[in-house]
Amino acid sequence: MSEQMTYQLSEIGTVNMRIWGRSSGRLDPLALFWTGSGIELNVQASELWVDVETDYDCHEQWMSVLVNGAHVSRQMLPKGRSEICLFRNMNPQEIKNVRLMKDVQAMSDDDGACFLIRGIRTDGSLHPVEGRKYKLEFIGDSITSGEGTIGAKKEWDWISMFFSSVHDYATLVSDACDAECHILSQSGWGTLTGWDNDPRHALPLYYEKVCGVLKGARNEALGAGADYDFSSWQPDAVVINLGTNDMSAFEQPEWRDETTGQTFKQHRNDDGSFVKEDAQRFEQAVIDFLYKLRKYHPDAHLVWTYGMIGAPMINLIGHAIHTYSAKSEDTNVAFVLLPDTTAETVGSREHPGKKSHEAAAGVLTSYLKAYLAAK
Amino acid sequence: MSEQMTYQLSEIGTVNMRIWGRSSGRLDPLALFWTGSGIELNVQASELWVDVETDYDCHEQWMSVLVNGAHVSRQMLPKGRSEICLFRNMNPQEIKNVRLMKDVQAMSDDDGACFLIRGIRTDGSLHPVEGRKYKLEFIGDSITSGEGTIGAKKEWDWISMFFSSVHDYATLVSDACDAECHILSQSGWGTLTGWDNDPRHALPLYYEKVCGVLKGARNEALGAGADYDFSSWQPDAVVINLGTNDMSAFEQPEWRDETTGQTFKQHRNDDGSFVKEDAQRFEQAVIDFLYKLRKYHPDAHLVWTYGMIGAPMINLIGHAIHTYSAKSEDTNVAFVLLPDTTAETVGSREHPGKKSHEAAAGVLTSYLKAYLAAK
Amino acid sequence: MSEQMTYQLSEIGTVNMRIWGRSSGRLDPLALFWTGSGIELNVQASELWVDVETDYDCHEQWMSVLVNGAHVSRQMLPKGRSEICLFRNMNPQEIKNVRLMKDVQAMSDDDGACFLIRGIRTDGSLHPVEGRKYKLEFIGDSITSGEGTIGAKKEWDWISMFFSSVHDYATLVSDACDAECHILSQSGWGTLTGWDNDPRHALPLYYEKVCGVLKGARNEALGAGADYDFSSWQPDAVVINLGTNDMSAFEQPEWRDETTGQTFKQHRNDDGSFVKEDAQRFEQAVIDFLYKLRKYHPDAHLVWTYGMIGAPMINLIGHAIHTYSAKSEDTNVAFVLLPDTTAETVGSREHPGKKSHEAAAGVLTSYLKAYLAAK
Amino acid sequence: MSEQMTYQLSEIGTVNMRIWGRSSGRLDPLALFWTGSGIELNVQASELWVDVETDYDCHEQWMSVLVNGAHVSRQMLPKGRSEICLFRNMNPQEIKNVRLMKDVQAMSDDDGACFLIRGIRTDGSLHPVEGRKYKLEFIGDSITSGEGTIGAKKEWDWISMFFSSVHDYATLVSDACDAECHILSQSGWGTLTGWDNDPRHALPLYYEKVCGVLKGARNEALGAGADYDFSSWQPDAVVINLGTNDMSAFEQPEWRDETTGQTFKQHRNDDGSFVKEDAQRFEQAVIDFLYKLRKYHPDAHLVWTYGMIGAPMINLIGHAIHTYSAKSEDTNVAFVLLPDTTAETVGSREHPGKKSHEAAAGVLTSYLKAYLAAK
Repeated sequence: MSEQMTYQLSEIGTVNMRIWGRSSGRLDPLALFWTGSGIELNVQASELWVDVETDYDCHEQWMSVLVNGAHVSRQMLPKGRSEICLFRNMNPQEIKNVRLMKDVQAMSDDDGACFLIRGIRTDGSLHPVEGRKYKLEFIGDSITSGEGTIGAKKEWDWISMFFSSVHDYATLVSDACDAECHILSQSGWGTLTGWDNDPRHALPLYYEKVCGVLKGARNEALGAGADYDFSSWQPDAVVINLGTNDMSAFEQPEWRDETTGQTFKQHRNDDGSFVKEDAQRFEQAVIDFLYKLRKYHPDAHLVWTYGMIGAPMINLIGHAIHTYSAKSEDTNVAFVLLPDTTAETVGSREHPGKKSHEAAAGVLTSYLKAYLAAK
Repeated sequence: MSEQMTYQLSEIGTVNMRIWGRSSGRLDPLALFWTGSGIELNVQASELWVDVETDYDCHEQWMSVLVNGAHVSRQMLPKGRSEICLFRNMNPQEIKNVRLMKDVQAMSDDDGACFLIRGIRTDGSLHPVEGRKYKLEFIGDSITSGEGTIGAKKEWDWISMFFSSVHDYATLVSDACDAECHILSQSGWGTLTGWDNDPRHALPLYYEKVCGVLKGARNEALGAGADYDFSSWQPDAVVINLGTNDMSAFEQPEWRDETTGQTFKQHRNDDGSFVKEDAQRFEQAVIDFLYKLRKYHPDAHLVWTYGMIGAPMINLIGHAIHTYSAKSEDTNVAFVLLPDTTAETVGSREHPGKKSHEAAAGVLTSYLKAYLAAK
Repeated sequence: MSEQMTYQLSEIGTVNMRIWGRSSGRLDPLALFWTGSGIELNVQASELWVDVETDYDCHEQWMSVLVNGAHVSRQMLPKGRSEICLFRNMNPQEIKNVRLMKDVQAMSDDDGACFLIRGIRTDGSLHPVEGRKYKLEFIGDSITSGEGTIGAKKEWDWISMFFSSVHDYATLVSDACDAECHILSQSGWGTLTGWDNDPRHALPLYYEKVCGVLKGARNEALGAGADYDFSSWQPDAVVINLGTNDMSAFEQPEWRDETTGQTFKQHRNDDGSFVKEDAQRFEQAVIDFLYKLRKYHPDAHLVWTYGMIGAPMINLIGHAIHTYSAKSEDTNVAFVLLPDTTAETVGSREHPGKKSHEAAAGVLTSYLKAYLAAK
Repeated sequence: MSEQMTYQLSEIGTVNMRIWGRSSGRLDPLALFWTGSGIELNVQASELWVDVETDYDCHEQWMSVLVNGAHVSRQMLPKGRSEICLFRNMNPQEIKNVRLMKDVQAMSDDDGACFLIRGIRTDGSLHPVEGRKYKLEFIGDSITSGEGTIGAKKEWDWISMFFSSVHDYATLVSDACDAECHILSQSGWGTLTGWDNDPRHALPLYYEKVCGVLKGARNEALGAGADYDFSSWQPDAVVINLGTNDMSAFEQPEWRDETTGQTFKQHRNDDGSFVKEDAQRFEQAVIDFLYKLRKYHPDAHLVWTYGMIGAPMINLIGHAIHTYSAKSEDTNVAFVLLPDTTAETVGSREHPGKKSHEAAAGVLTSYLKAYLAAK
């Protein structure tokens, strides 16, 4: 067996490593903020170890490992620093493609949340990781966080274990389209408000930051709150999957900020229809977000997707997109309905399960492949 | 066994009978022009016979029969008048829902084409046919004519046998949405031109007529060329599935009318891209058709679908829809990509097969159900 | 178009025609007795017509047509003689493989039942029909008659319309194994008795006749009651699918022959188990039938299949097969459990539907292919 | 949060814990020898940790965890002793069913192989684990070890990573039948010899020992080589899935023991058929193993299954079973062909993948459910 060598990520560099997920750009250590973040290597060696450090106040970190594209392990990570073996006892002559994925979303209510990669150790050599043909960005809520893609149907605990980026439609679509992806997602959040009418839980508010939803001094120091450099990674398409929690706001009681006394509430009429003004401010939030996305991505196809947990907002979203398109004279925008989750495809926590994500990925992949081929 | 009685269709009336397909409104006889046209009855009897008359110069007529929604027979019809048994030897107490469908598209190059229903004979009684909840209109080409949904993969003959409305996505969607449907379709036709650049083979040109594509004195006498009364049947949604033959025009040689000397041709640039002016006149044809459809259907959702035989026009169609929407301030319009046909789902004549239509129907049904529920 | 010629079947001969189904060997006319019987031709012509004659007292005849292996039509046949077009308007240069199938089982309670092929008419030429690699015989009840493979789930009429050999597992298996097949089947019949304890409704009783279950002077004259010449067609495997009605006999009241006073009844004990003597006489009927099959087919693999409508007799059948094998020292016998019918795969009349037959065919094809390859 | 308590397994006892897999009966520690071995608990707590110890010379250990039946983690275990969290941060009021499975087969060529459970730690209480209705024993080779159910198709390394009991048909069948299971399996082994003609690699040779295939002083001390107490666990059925490597022996060169000079080789004739004497000694090995199994399990249904990697021995196995049955007058034996692996269902190392195991489990579950219901 050859001698083992350790490497910091900066020593590997970006030719021999692909960074997954929106990051601050710093490599030593690499902080994995968003779900699906991680590293990908091509390793000609008999074994490979990774030096990771995690922390949490409440929600522990989970990691998945793919070897040559196959999902071979998924595990809860211990608190603190550990060296974990990703493979061993393999043919040292063969190059193995290895991808380590953060399986849990940015936990915005856990200031201690932290997942760092400090380095690797191997007995072989690293080789270039070829670029993928396209770049895709996904922005969403619990659905896009893969919540419910793992675990028994009866589960109701809101815990890290039941989140997974591996089975997420965003990951499936990216693999099928030969695309890199960034995933920005927060369970319970929406376009205008969160599920509970909380107006601070709107993804657009934090879009310009590296990972503005993460709090705490350590995350601040790691660059989570810094402005994101959009020029560093220009996606071919931005997929927005929001609306499910905006709908929920019409069902939930008023939100009240106990400190400021500020309140918020989306209303229905007595006949069940949306109150016109409230529907309009949701539509305006959609329109505003489309303007913001276009500002940072002049050439990206903007695709609003919706429907994995029902589609009651379909006409509001459709109307908002056409209104945006008409006002902005921007026709590079589309709506794609994703298949609803059924009794056969539901996962844990009454969320879309693995089969639902596969079905959604099928529809979205067809659409994006057709668009990208005709571009 | 009870006494047998014969009925002309006018004696049955529209409470006890549903007419399928766009028709002239005349009942004695009922001329079935478009594919999927026919009659539906609820019959409490042990047997039921239908009195039909067909003719053709080249392309014979085919008929399918559904009993209680199940497809029990499909047969080539003899030339001339025949009495055909739709069921017999059944429990006379039970009410059977029976639907007779014309399985072949309007054959526009066959002046002799004719399919008439002259009456029925039964030993029992007729009962009301309840209305379906929605109305859908489908406008398309060979795909919407169900061409290729029957027959071996190796078949290349362009004959009636390989057309079927039973397996057509339009029929599947309508059944799944509890909708009546009208299907207007012509194999080889497009939005701007036919597959061969022939500008006379554009569906929009004939949209105002009952069945303007059918020629010949008998069809004229039967009302095929009369103005259609749009007020008689207002669809909830109009589904347009055109573009596939418009694409083909870019690949085919120039069309020339030997009589007038008129020519037409859509062009590609040397690099394979569409010549801008030609792309624009296709887009303008899409836009014009949307204006025309909106004129006759002020409240219908206009859904342009595309993709069952590839999707190279996806961006032209998307751009045209957004341009129409912006200019007209009409946001009640949408685009839905249908799944491409694969080696597993292809049928005869390299056209979408039964499984491809099922896949397309799945996507389109999801979309329409979501839209109709949120309307 | 070329001149049309008519042919009697004897003029075609067995090189240019395959006869499907156990028959008397007479060709002018060819009487189709059992389900799945018919003719297969290779025709280089633009059109083909068949001259058929049918009769019935109660249960009309149905016919399916396959062109190049694809099921293109299925229709109820009129009483009397008719000339029916199987295809027309096709490329006269191409050779079309055409198969006409009797879709309805031998109707043993209808003395008038009759389906004759008297000849064909075509404008082209006939070509040799290559032999299939194997020969399979299927013996069974309603399941093997394809009862329920067509029609709505709610149907309960016991009529010809709901029988089909096209969707029958026996046909699917034969096509998948490149095998000719003979199907001997009677709805409601068993190994020892029929579903109602009638001991005359046991398939083994009639096994030596061409089609001994068919009665009436005409069928007698057509050779249905003649001894079958087993040397004319030696199957590689005989598949028996009986037991389902033998089970039913344990649930049904005693059978009584009003003329002779003879009675019969299979009994359960109070605890629901089978009365030992009755179970044994069922097992003995299985054993006796295996001896009889072996007598006529010294080299055939005998495969008892079971389970498409539950499998409560599985252990009795297993025990009987092993007892037969031990006593006879015949090890060329096997048992294959077929998948049970589910809510998703059920057809009309609470019988296995098309999907159930497909599932059963999958299992049985795997078994037979493995056996035939290793033979 | 409640106080954390640690327990040795003997403190838990067999009411509150199910032991999976054939074991020595010793609990402190519990040695997991065979694949699929492990423990199952019902835990009312917010968290659960397990104290494990593993060792190896070459092939590391892997563990899977199921929470409420869902596969939530799979990980390579570090060498030595570790405390691993199985779940945390869950609702302390809910009872969680937790199952820890050894995912790797007994590695018979690794004397250091060792996987011990030394105890657990939790902040809650343990509750009874209800017995499953049936008991099933599976005896097989690499297929039954789940080799290839994980990993990319291109993988060829013979390493622990690509073995899994979670996706194994034996596990799937047991879950579907509400059965406990024991799995005895060795990759490359057969009924008479291993894949390479090595006559020492025949599963029947070690059947009477707890885990006779495992060597080394520590395994000896842990009881691997002790006689197994068959009275402790009497299966309702024993499923044997052997023959694939016996077939391979006909293709491979002679085996030679360099120490003793002993050789072994199964031969084909020039025409490819099996040499009669060699086929017979394989059949005799099948017969002898059936006698041995019957000796230890007087009432168990003996089911020989085969076919997931082709079925060229099908007739030899069928003949052997019938010969055994005839000689022994034992009719409580059966053969079930499992579906062959296809390009769609293959996994890594050209072995049956997850989908192939699911297909096989479907067929075997149907058979066993029918048998068990009719017993």
